[in-house]
Amino acid sequence: MESWVYKFGDGQADGRAEMRNLLGGKGANLAEMSHLGLPVPPGFTLTTEVCKYYYDHDVSYPGDLEDQVDAALAALEKSVGARFGDPENPLLVSVRSGARVSMPGMMDTVLNLGLNDVTVAGLAKRVGDERFAYDSYRRFIQMYGDVVLGVDHYSFEHELAMLKEECEAELDTDLTADDLKELVKRYSAIIQEQRGKPFPQEPKAQLWGAIDAVFGSWMNQRAITYRQLHDIPKDWGTAVNVQVMVFGNMGDDCATGVAFTRNPSTGENMFYGEYLINAQGEDVVAGIRTPQPLTNGGQQLNGAALPAMEDVMPVVFKQLMDVRQTLERHYKDMQDIEFTVQRDKLYMLQTRSGKRTAAAAIRIAVEMAQDGLISEAEAVQRIDPSHLDQLLHPTLDPDAARDVLGRGLPASPGAACGKIVFNAEDAVDQAGRNERVILVRIETSPEDIHGMHAAAGILTTRGGMTSHAAVVARGMGRSCVAGAGELSVDYKAQTLSSRDITLRAGDVITIDGTSGEVMVGEVATIDPDLSDEFTTLMAWADRTRRLKVRTNAETPDDVRTALQFGAEGIGLCRTEHMFFDPARIVAVRRMILAEDRSGRQAALAELLPYQRADFAEIFDLMKGLPVTIRLLDPPLHEFLPHSAEEIADVAKAAGVDPEVMRRRALRLAEQNPMLGHRGCRLAISYPEICEMQARAIFEAATEVSQKQGLGVVPEIMIPLVASRREFVILKELIDKIAAAVEEETGAKIDYLVGTMIELPRACLRAGEIAEQAEFFSFGTNDLTQTTFGISRDDAGNFLPDYEVQGILEKDPFVTIDVDGVGELVRIGVERGRATTPDLKLGICGEHGGDPASIHFCEGVGLDYVSCSPYRVPIARLAAAQAALKAKSNGGG
Amino acid sequence: MESWVYKFGDGQADGRAEMRNLLGGKGANLAEMSHLGLPVPPGFTLTTEVCKYYYDHDVSYPGDLEDQVDAALAALEKSVGARFGDPENPLLVSVRSGARVSMPGMMDTVLNLGLNDVTVAGLAKRVGDERFAYDSYRRFIQMYGDVVLGVDHYSFEHELAMLKEECEAELDTDLTADDLKELVKRYSAIIQEQRGKPFPQEPKAQLWGAIDAVFGSWMNQRAITYRQLHDIPKDWGTAVNVQVMVFGNMGDDCATGVAFTRNPSTGENMFYGEYLINAQGEDVVAGIRTPQPLTNGGQQLNGAALPAMEDVMPVVFKQLMDVRQTLERHYKDMQDIEFTVQRDKLYMLQTRSGKRTAAAAIRIAVEMAQDGLISEAEAVQRIDPSHLDQLLHPTLDPDAARDVLGRGLPASPGAACGKIVFNAEDAVDQAGRNERVILVRIETSPEDIHGMHAAAGILTTRGGMTSHAAVVARGMGRSCVAGAGELSVDYKAQTLSSRDITLRAGDVITIDGTSGEVMVGEVATIDPDLSDEFTTLMAWADRTRRLKVRTNAETPDDVRTALQFGAEGIGLCRTEHMFFDPARIVAVRRMILAEDRSGRQAALAELLPYQRADFAEIFDLMKGLPVTIRLLDPPLHEFLPHSAEEIADVAKAAGVDPEVMRRRALRLAEQNPMLGHRGCRLAISYPEICEMQARAIFEAATEVSQKQGLGVVPEIMIPLVASRREFVILKELIDKIAAAVEEETGAKIDYLVGTMIELPRACLRAGEIAEQAEFFSFGTNDLTQTTFGISRDDAGNFLPDYEVQGILEKDPFVTIDVDGVGELVRIGVERGRATTPDLKLGICGEHGGDPASIHFCEGVGLDYVSCSPYRVPIARLAAAQAALKAKSNGGG
Repeated sequence: MESWVYKFGDGQADGRAEMRNLLGGKGANLAEMSHLGLPVPPGFTLTTEVCKYYYDHDVSYPGDLEDQVDAALAALEKSVGARFGDPENPLLVSVRSGARVSMPGMMDTVLNLGLNDVTVAGLAKRVGDERFAYDSYRRFIQMYGDVVLGVDHYSFEHELAMLKEECEAELDTDLTADDLKELVKRYSAIIQEQRGKPFPQEPKAQLWGAIDAVFGSWMNQRAITYRQLHDIPKDWGTAVNVQVMVFGNMGDDCATGVAFTRNPSTGENMFYGEYLINAQGEDVVAGIRTPQPLTNGGQQLNGAALPAMEDVMPVVFKQLMDVRQTLERHYKDMQDIEFTVQRDKLYMLQTRSGKRTAAAAIRIAVEMAQDGLISEAEAVQRIDPSHLDQLLHPTLDPDAARDVLGRGLPASPGAACGKIVFNAEDAVDQAGRNERVILVRIETSPEDIHGMHAAAGILTTRGGMTSHAAVVARGMGRSCVAGAGELSVDYKAQTLSSRDITLRAGDVITIDGTSGEVMVGEVATIDPDLSDEFTTLMAWADRTRRLKVRTNAETPDDVRTALQFGAEGIGLCRTEHMFFDPARIVAVRRMILAEDRSGRQAALAELLPYQRADFAEIFDLMKGLPVTIRLLDPPLHEFLPHSAEEIADVAKAAGVDPEVMRRRALRLAEQNPMLGHRGCRLAISYPEICEMQARAIFEAATEVSQKQGLGVVPEIMIPLVASRREFVILKELIDKIAAAVEEETGAKIDYLVGTMIELPRACLRAGEIAEQAEFFSFGTNDLTQTTFGISRDDAGNFLPDYEVQGILEKDPFVTIDVDGVGELVRIGVERGRATTPDLKLGICGEHGGDPASIHFCEGVGLDYVSCSPYRVPIARLAAAQAALKAKSNGGG
Repeated sequence: MESWVYKFGDGQADGRAEMRNLLGGKGANLAEMSHLGLPVPPGFTLTTEVCKYYYDHDVSYPGDLEDQVDAALAALEKSVGARFGDPENPLLVSVRSGARVSMPGMMDTVLNLGLNDVTVAGLAKRVGDERFAYDSYRRFIQMYGDVVLGVDHYSFEHELAMLKEECEAELDTDLTADDLKELVKRYSAIIQEQRGKPFPQEPKAQLWGAIDAVFGSWMNQRAITYRQLHDIPKDWGTAVNVQVMVFGNMGDDCATGVAFTRNPSTGENMFYGEYLINAQGEDVVAGIRTPQPLTNGGQQLNGAALPAMEDVMPVVFKQLMDVRQTLERHYKDMQDIEFTVQRDKLYMLQTRSGKRTAAAAIRIAVEMAQDGLISEAEAVQRIDPSHLDQLLHPTLDPDAARDVLGRGLPASPGAACGKIVFNAEDAVDQAGRNERVILVRIETSPEDIHGMHAAAGILTTRGGMTSHAAVVARGMGRSCVAGAGELSVDYKAQTLSSRDITLRAGDVITIDGTSGEVMVGEVATIDPDLSDEFTTLMAWADRTRRLKVRTNAETPDDVRTALQFGAEGIGLCRTEHMFFDPARIVAVRRMILAEDRSGRQAALAELLPYQRADFAEIFDLMKGLPVTIRLLDPPLHEFLPHSAEEIADVAKAAGVDPEVMRRRALRLAEQNPMLGHRGCRLAISYPEICEMQARAIFEAATEVSQKQGLGVVPEIMIPLVASRREFVILKELIDKIAAAVEEETGAKIDYLVGTMIELPRACLRAGEIAEQAEFFSFGTNDLTQTTFGISRDDAGNFLPDYEVQGILEKDPFVTIDVDGVGELVRIGVERGRATTPDLKLGICGEHGGDPASIHFCEGVGLDYVSCSPYRVPIARLAAAQAALKAKSNGGG
């Protein structure tokens, strides 16, 4: 016979904490606390299997459920010596839902179940407080009427307000027992009127009504929506917990409270919580009365006026401290608990793992490991890597007032404040004058890079989490709010407007790239301060992981930041950013627009010293760590001059007619630059670009090698390869340049030539490409674009609809699409390694900094991940967790 | 012992025609003719294995080669009773290269080898013609000096010109025997001077020099380039043919000629060729003398003044007619032959399969099959399907004069002539007034569709073989020259200019979409006339093929054309073309730019009757044949209004401020529309578009079904699906509309819902998509774009470089890339059929009309191909060939 009902309380229980799937989180922990001998009011749990049965069988219950409930109820009655419906000593229970994970979409709680027109008098007599009894009863009718019977809760509130007016009562507490009796009558009338039958008087009927309501709420619209948003499968189901009522509101020897076993903000190992004398649980949350601190420490910390529980109820407090210790030792984690004191007796109503800030999470994990409560590996596994982002950037002062102008996507974390500028030039200018500026654009393009670098933050009104602005901002560690569609930018008028407010260039705004909020004026921020525990945890992570962690960086600032954050090399040094420097762009354009090879060579000769210096600076900083340099990648299209002025500049530099230049630019313009003349296609068409870049790399490597006495081994990466032959042609060219530079300098050059695998065809043909390539780096941004046929620049118009409709579980530009893009990566890895077993494999798309994607990278056997500087710590931790998971999966 | 040398002649031979790979084409056919007892001057062939050995062993020969050559030479001497270097009766030979396929890049021929200062006198004496002997010798020195010794041929020509001046001779033939003796001396001096040693006198040394030169020429630059251009592997190697000389220039009883065994232009079964009395082979080609016809029939046909060989040399002619019959019976194909008559004796020097026009190929194949010479299957296999294109379109009169303005890509075959117009509106206007116009654009976009339809031909100055203009023109059967980069269009000035000439709107031009030429003025064209043999051949093909052939068509004209050409259904009816009609575009734009669902619905309600009428017309024409209709696919971007005027029109229709409309259009503009808000993404965002289209389809199907009494079963195709869920959402929507229309009309609707598989992810996830889809149609255009990451609109800037550098063997937008895109298609087929074994599978990319791609489709097991109307016959034939090949591969 299947057990549908699990009892708990009185120092024993049918269930255990591990049975969360069957009993729900709340039920499992009530059972566990019972086992631990903690004072849990007894009760029982209807399992999630009942819920499953209910929906699999046309909303009906197993035949033997009622008998099991009856038996559990009988045991309960025996345990507490009260009975359902007993006029002298009625059993009162609470009924609570409880899924595997907390789910706000569902019915929550019905209290005081068991009261009726008769038992209310018995309760009054037993407690010696008629007002308390009728207040409990009217609350019960109100709650039950609302959540079980579906009566509009406004009806009750309206009636309560009317009565208060009639009685000239200001507060609920001004109502007398008689007033409340009257209220019970009126509430009952409302039920009769709206539901066509009286309020159920039979406690068992009340109980089954509440059970039905909990199971029914699993499929209400709010719950469905919540599950969709949080990836919770429908078939998990919910449990129902029926538990004997205890009261924190029977007098001054009663109380109710919530606590964390450690400080959830800082992680400090101190008891942390609040309580209220003579109150029920809801009152703490409702905020009508100011809760009191638990400890003297807490009192000092918050400067609270009211005395701490430590002083007011020293005996109970002592018990609570013991409970705290018991729970932490047992659960090996910080707990969030709820308790009630009924006439000086402590009851535990809930325990669960406590939510905490990233800083607290780290401190708690590290201290628990240092105390031997958990292992280092457990400590490493306990931190959600994506939460580290909170620690690495300035954050808004939580206490500061905010005047929110609008909201966009939290594209790059951290808060920033500054004057509005609408173009990159103004950003550079004003930053040069030590102004803090926020660059506000409809969207950004590579030409804005310098402005983005100069700005404290970036705000765009178009584009998604992986738009140009978002990607570049994350790379630079600038905070960014992207795609704030409710705001509009008018470049001509130089305004940024919401529906109500129009701001002008020079006005101050604050953006929070962690929440996506845009605020008018300055909001105070707090600078990051990395704790010793952070350092300790990262050291443990480094000892644990197999994957190396590199960074995507090309400016000296970014390189320094990444090194500070523990980067072990550069996995992607983009060379195009170097081309947009205002000092160089004219030469770049001249090169692109040259009619022939000699014209291009002349322009490239101007660029060579710049590139050489760029590379030398990076090699110098990296001190022998590996540096992967990607040859020029973006579509020529992006470099084209647009304005007449820009065209004139280029024409002048090249010594040709502006009209000729304009026509040539027009000819090179592209419909779909993402799929256009870019990547290795540039070097195939214009080998002299590749020659110049290879020369710059080799000359810089030679120079720095000699200076530092360290072997600089550049890794040259050819982008957007679709076929073996493209790779071979360019590798031969690079080898030729290496030989020439060796000849000129007399110094031997070590280097690798590899490719970015970022097209479906490259994955499929990886076997033959690997015959020649020394490394692959999976460019999963472009691979995602081509595999899905989605341009991330344009996805903002429809991807949100896709997420709402559940078509995409996650934005595939943020977390790798394992089923599609992932299969191609796997094919690429397998075929590449089949040809060349020691092929070095990495990833340098945005996914390289995403924890879920890093797990995929571990699983597929890459050698390293590469991510933007600010994500390096996240990647280090995620890599460690992935290694631990792989180890446990492997049984090793 | 390996045989390096194969003898032939005297009615026997070591080789056979099948040994073409070993003996080269020429050598194999000389051996075959010897076997047939035809009068072949004896000789021997050094095999292609010698060539391979030569390059595999550092340009040296096998040790036993010299002995084998000596033995073959001795046999030759014995056979003809002459000896190498014999002063009385010297053996003279020709040395010719001969690869598997004819290769103009290599050394061709050395004649008269064996002559030297001594044997020349012997030849003079034997022939009784001193002038002939010395002329032969000086020609030998000149030829050998040039191609074997590498002496600049201008030196010889210069010396000859000098001598003629000295002798006051006007023509070569004015030189006497003594003059020629002097010339031999001077030629010998040139050799001595330039090479530092005398002209080789020893015939064997001469022979080895010539053999070295032939093998050496296999790796000269011209040959390498030719091989690259024609996909000929390097390791095929060439053979060398050494053959006894016969002379057609010893007097009036001598002659030389070339002939085709049937008419190569028309295919008529008549002997067709030319000859010259007293001449050598080169003279026929050189064009100094007018060749004479072989037959009286030929004489009449060409209106030749000179008498036919039939009359002049009746005995030899009779022999030649016998040879003709022998060869055709033996080779079962039309032959291209070379012969020489030496003193009334016929010698055959060459036979090979003759080149022919498409019309001739069909007539020959069909007539040979009807005569029982070959089977129907062989006839079907003998026609290159792509050559059919020549027959289906008007062609330029080959005799008409042409004033070529410039050249572009032969984007859509056929010739067309008309007045220049520079925009679609003018094209529609003038065509309405019965003017023939050529639409001239820099490039075309979907808005030009109506103009393209109205025009006789399309000329663009940008874009490749798969640019919008090219694809649409092929689909419509309009001739098109695309990407004529040497021409420039100025819309403002309304001019089309080459470097030298500027034409204006209204000027007449002629374009030839088969050659890519653009000509000034009108050039006469010839209309296509499909022969009975064509019809017969296509009927045989239809009996043979397994693949069904459908068409991509959406206008009634195209549908009719395709049906005429034998289409068995519509595989792709695009619905967007219907949206660009000037009568509808404002409603379309209003729909796109509407701020909400109700605004879109209002605009869609206007479009519904149009779409319903479109579909009804097509269903009506198709009379129950399957019609696959693709839901709206192109990026919204393409429909956006551009000019202020267009924006004002839309704003007025929608009743909103033009500025609001402008901003909204700006917001919807995309960076990479190909990867943007298009395909099923439109219907996901705006389900009402899908609803309107589904309703139009179902209402039209119901109407036509009732009218015709035929069951119309529309196949609704959802484009650009990347995941199962997208498909499911839209299928449910379509099913809902079907139910609603059934409810309204009371008539049952049969229909299928399937999807276009055109993204790499769709191929990978085909298994789960097939759970719901009733058919797949592979959209290999977009699949190629995404697999390669190449936009075909932009590929023109680099794909030509790619083909030149051998990176892409073929344009992957023309012939499917079997290794990459093909693997994805195969994966899609396998996974789709694994889930749903009876899944209907087709292809509707441009590849559906490409013969090589159709072979792939047969191999991968598709059910049908779909192509533009004018390619339907090509697809029918290619499908038949693919079926025959599959059958022979399968051993069945």
